[in-house]
Amino acid sequence: MRKKQTTIKRFLLVLIITSFNFYSGQAQTNDITDNEALKAVLAAKEAAEKTGVLVNIAVVDAGANLKSFIRMDDSFLGSIDVSIKKAKTARYFNIATGELGKLTQPGGIIYNIELSNGGLVTFPGGIPIKNKQGKIIGAIGVSGGTIEQDHAIATVGAKSILN
Amino acid sequence: MRKKQTTIKRFLLVLIITSFNFYSGQAQTNDITDNEALKAVLAAKEAAEKTGVLVNIAVVDAGANLKSFIRMDDSFLGSIDVSIKKAKTARYFNIATGELGKLTQPGGIIYNIELSNGGLVTFPGGIPIKNKQGKIIGAIGVSGGTIEQDHAIATVGAKSILN
Amino acid sequence: MRKKQTTIKRFLLVLIITSFNFYSGQAQTNDITDNEALKAVLAAKEAAEKTGVLVNIAVVDAGANLKSFIRMDDSFLGSIDVSIKKAKTARYFNIATGELGKLTQPGGIIYNIELSNGGLVTFPGGIPIKNKQGKIIGAIGVSGGTIEQDHAIATVGAKSILN
Amino acid sequence: MRKKQTTIKRFLLVLIITSFNFYSGQAQTNDITDNEALKAVLAAKEAAEKTGVLVNIAVVDAGANLKSFIRMDDSFLGSIDVSIKKAKTARYFNIATGELGKLTQPGGIIYNIELSNGGLVTFPGGIPIKNKQGKIIGAIGVSGGTIEQDHAIATVGAKSILN
Repeated sequence: MRKKQTTIKRFLLVLIITSFNFYSGQAQTNDITDNEALKAVLAAKEAAEKTGVLVNIAVVDAGANLKSFIRMDDSFLGSIDVSIKKAKTARYFNIATGELGKLTQPGGIIYNIELSNGGLVTFPGGIPIKNKQGKIIGAIGVSGGTIEQDHAIATVGAKSILN
Repeated sequence: MRKKQTTIKRFLLVLIITSFNFYSGQAQTNDITDNEALKAVLAAKEAAEKTGVLVNIAVVDAGANLKSFIRMDDSFLGSIDVSIKKAKTARYFNIATGELGKLTQPGGIIYNIELSNGGLVTFPGGIPIKNKQGKIIGAIGVSGGTIEQDHAIATVGAKSILN
Repeated sequence: MRKKQTTIKRFLLVLIITSFNFYSGQAQTNDITDNEALKAVLAAKEAAEKTGVLVNIAVVDAGANLKSFIRMDDSFLGSIDVSIKKAKTARYFNIATGELGKLTQPGGIIYNIELSNGGLVTFPGGIPIKNKQGKIIGAIGVSGGTIEQDHAIATVGAKSILN
Repeated sequence: MRKKQTTIKRFLLVLIITSFNFYSGQAQTNDITDNEALKAVLAAKEAAEKTGVLVNIAVVDAGANLKSFIRMDDSFLGSIDVSIKKAKTARYFNIATGELGKLTQPGGIIYNIELSNGGLVTFPGGIPIKNKQGKIIGAIGVSGGTIEQDHAIATVGAKSILN
């Protein structure tokens, strides 16, 4: 009898915690918040500064709408649009832009998909942003360095919101 | 004499039925109707659900104008535009998009035609919709799965209006 | 003592129901589902048919992305884009398009805002769609009739998801 | 003699300080830096939060290119583009957007100039950002509140870089 009561209590505790998480954390669960987006952008900027790379950094929300952006001094002007398009592309198809690019080459299964959605960017530098539960809540796009640098900086930004 | 009368009667009956079909069903003959477009979209959606694929489905009419559309929950945001462009492309050139894609590769006879018409999509997933007489009356575009899945789902949608 | 237990039981019951609603109904709470979007479009179409008006009907989701669409036979071709822009405008600013239009006239406080966001439509026919809790989860846009008819038909569509 | 030496020393000191300021602060003089743009955006966000207004905030540099951006949670989706266009408009013509709007009304001397430059926004909320010397080095655009709130928040952002 006592054991049964304990089991019920534990079950109810889980329920209460779940409910609490629901009410307090709903926005974070499904969509990136402004503070998370800002955190991602600043973490990426810091990573870029450490390696001496000048980049543009864009974060979009779950609806692929621009959420935060920063352009480092003296970075390429052409990278403003590229970074935003990388972030959008990563969220449009829930994939790292470099992975998508492997499929869009001549002879690839989705050749020239870049011409849809007002212009996509399918080389590395854009990656989805996931929350702690692994759900995609937005995306980050980085442009200005080499594609390896851009991808590495974007990764730092995306992961920063988990800390 | 009696036989002749019967023949005439049958001939007239066929004429009446034909005329009736012509007058009542004219729209169906040359252009997809709203109910047919809805039927195609719903049949495609059902086929996608059966195979567990999340897609966007667009149907355009004989004039390549959007006639009906549905986006399944959690399907790719980027597939809205891709599905509509697949449907338009299929009707613009009265061909399955995958067939067109064979001709648009580097060295192909219509290389980079994707840049025309505000952006075409030339990989599989878009196909013309024909009526019972084989006349093209619209087109359907599906995006969200693999190109094989998209094409198969589009085919189900296109054929559904024949039943 | 018995009373206290009853109170606790009731409290827990509410918790359980809340949790259940959370798990079963999360998508509906924040964003319109495909079935709701379809329901809204069909309810609006039925209302249009009853009054003999030929319209285009578009529904966008919480992210202002196209979710469902239908064009009635013989309705204006120009209304495809107008209906979609009405739906997007209503969600972009969480307001009935006709209300926004009162502020965008010459001398109005947001004159010519129509030129932003790739083109807005600010006359009646677009309204936000709310769930039972009153939260905006998408929007509907109707075009093809008079502005009064469009607005009335859009209202029928928006309210249909509450039943 | 001693007085003359002192005068020379003072003259040299001024020269050194001036040179130092020139070399270390050149970027600030002609163009807003990334840190200043970030500071302006955050100051505007803080001002918006204090007054309970949900806004989008954009800063462009001296070249009218996007430099930093933040969208507050639950602010209007349509305000992303409006805030960016307000910032660009303010820098395109070195004027507060509301002042420009007085000239663009029907009968105004630059009627419908909103149609140029890919779309301008000419109601309040966009203002030039000046450095300590009064030189325009960028602009800020705010959208989401009333036009008075947007203008007030933009002003806080623009002035924050002077501290």
